[in-house]
Amino acid sequence: MDFSSKLLENAVNEMAQFPGIGKRTALRLVLHLLKQPKSHTQKLSESLQKMRDEIIFCKNCHNISDKEICEICSNLNRNKQLVCVVEDIRDVMAIENTSQYRGQYHVLGGKISPMDGIGPGELNISSLIDKVKSGVVKELVFALSSTMEGDTTNFFIFKQIEEFKITTTTIARGISVGDELEYADEVTLGRSIVNRIPFEASLKN
Amino acid sequence: MDFSSKLLENAVNEMAQFPGIGKRTALRLVLHLLKQPKSHTQKLSESLQKMRDEIIFCKNCHNISDKEICEICSNLNRNKQLVCVVEDIRDVMAIENTSQYRGQYHVLGGKISPMDGIGPGELNISSLIDKVKSGVVKELVFALSSTMEGDTTNFFIFKQIEEFKITTTTIARGISVGDELEYADEVTLGRSIVNRIPFEASLKN
Repeated sequence: MDFSSKLLENAVNEMAQFPGIGKRTALRLVLHLLKQPKSHTQKLSESLQKMRDEIIFCKNCHNISDKEICEICSNLNRNKQLVCVVEDIRDVMAIENTSQYRGQYHVLGGKISPMDGIGPGELNISSLIDKVKSGVVKELVFALSSTMEGDTTNFFIFKQIEEFKITTTTIARGISVGDELEYADEVTLGRSIVNRIPFEASLKN
Repeated sequence: MDFSSKLLENAVNEMAQFPGIGKRTALRLVLHLLKQPKSHTQKLSESLQKMRDEIIFCKNCHNISDKEICEICSNLNRNKQLVCVVEDIRDVMAIENTSQYRGQYHVLGGKISPMDGIGPGELNISSLIDKVKSGVVKELVFALSSTMEGDTTNFFIFKQIEEFKITTTTIARGISVGDELEYADEVTLGRSIVNRIPFEASLKN
C-alpha cells in the first residue's frame, strides 16, 4: 500500500499489529479517527496507555484486577478449596456470567503451545502447583478449551499434582442446550453418550 | 459485560467505539496489548495521537498529506485539467494503484447522506465548484460508489457546474475482468451492454 503521508502510514502499521486486523481494516479504523474530534483520539490513546501501565494482576489467581488481590479472591463467600483453571480473563468473565460457580480461579495466561513458542515456563503453572502443595485446594476444575494445546496443558498440570491426591475434574463436554442431535459433531455426541449423567441429576439444573 | 478492572473496562469501551468493533473484539485486542511489552502500547498510542494532531489535508485536493500541497498536486507531470472526484483517501490509493490515471483528485470526504446528517456543507464541495469556476478544470471524472448517496452527490455537483460547460464523465460500470457473465447481477450486465465500447478501443487496454 502506498500512503500519501508518513504519519498515516505509521498509524496504520501500528494498528495492523493487532491480531486479525489487516492493513485495509487498520486504514479504515485510522480514517475513522480523523473524522472524529482530536479529543477522541487523545482519550483513546490515554486509556490504552494508562491500562497497560497501571493494570495489576491478582497475586493469587493472576486475573486482571485494580487491586493486589482481586475481588473474587478477596470475597469470603467464595470457596477457596475449589479452583477452576482457565486460559485467560475472558473465560473468567464467561463462567462468572453463568452465576453457577462459587469457587476461585487460576488464570494460566495461555496454553502450552510449542508451535507458538509457549512452554510451561511462560504460563502461571508453578504458582498453581504451589497452591495445590500448600494443601488449601481440594478440587481442581480444568476449564481449558478442548484443543490439542488445551489437552496438553491439562495433562502437564495433572501429572505434576497427581501425587497430592486432590480431586481433579473437567467441565462437561456435550450437546449444547437447545441444539438438535442430528447436527452435532460426532466427537461431541460420542462424548455426551459416554459421559451420560443420572436423569435425576439433570432435573436439578 | 462485567470487568474485573476499571482500567480494562475504560480501554475496552474506547476501542469499541471504532466502527465494526464490538465489545468482545475490543476485549480481545486490549488483552493482546497486555501480552506485549509496555513499549508496544506506548508506540501505538503515540503514533495515533501524532497522526491525529499533525496530519495535514492538501489545500488543493483535500487528500491526506504531510505537506500543505500533496505530492500528487505538486507533481508537474500530472494533468491539472483532469480532476477525479472521489469519496476518501482509500479511493485515491485504489486508483493510484492502477497506474492508469495521470490527472489530479478532489477528495470530498464523504457522500451526501441526509440519514447520517451529512449535507453538502459537511463535504469539500464548495472548493470543487471554485476550482471549476476558476477555469483550470477541463474534465471532471465522477468516481463515487454507485449507491443512492453516491448518485445524489454526483447529481448535486453536476447541477452546480452545469453552467461552466466542462466535460463531465463517470467511471465505467460493467462486468469485472475475468468474471463469468452468468453470475453477474442484472443491473451491471444491463449497463455494460448499454454502455458498450468499440471493439478496437478494448484492444488498447
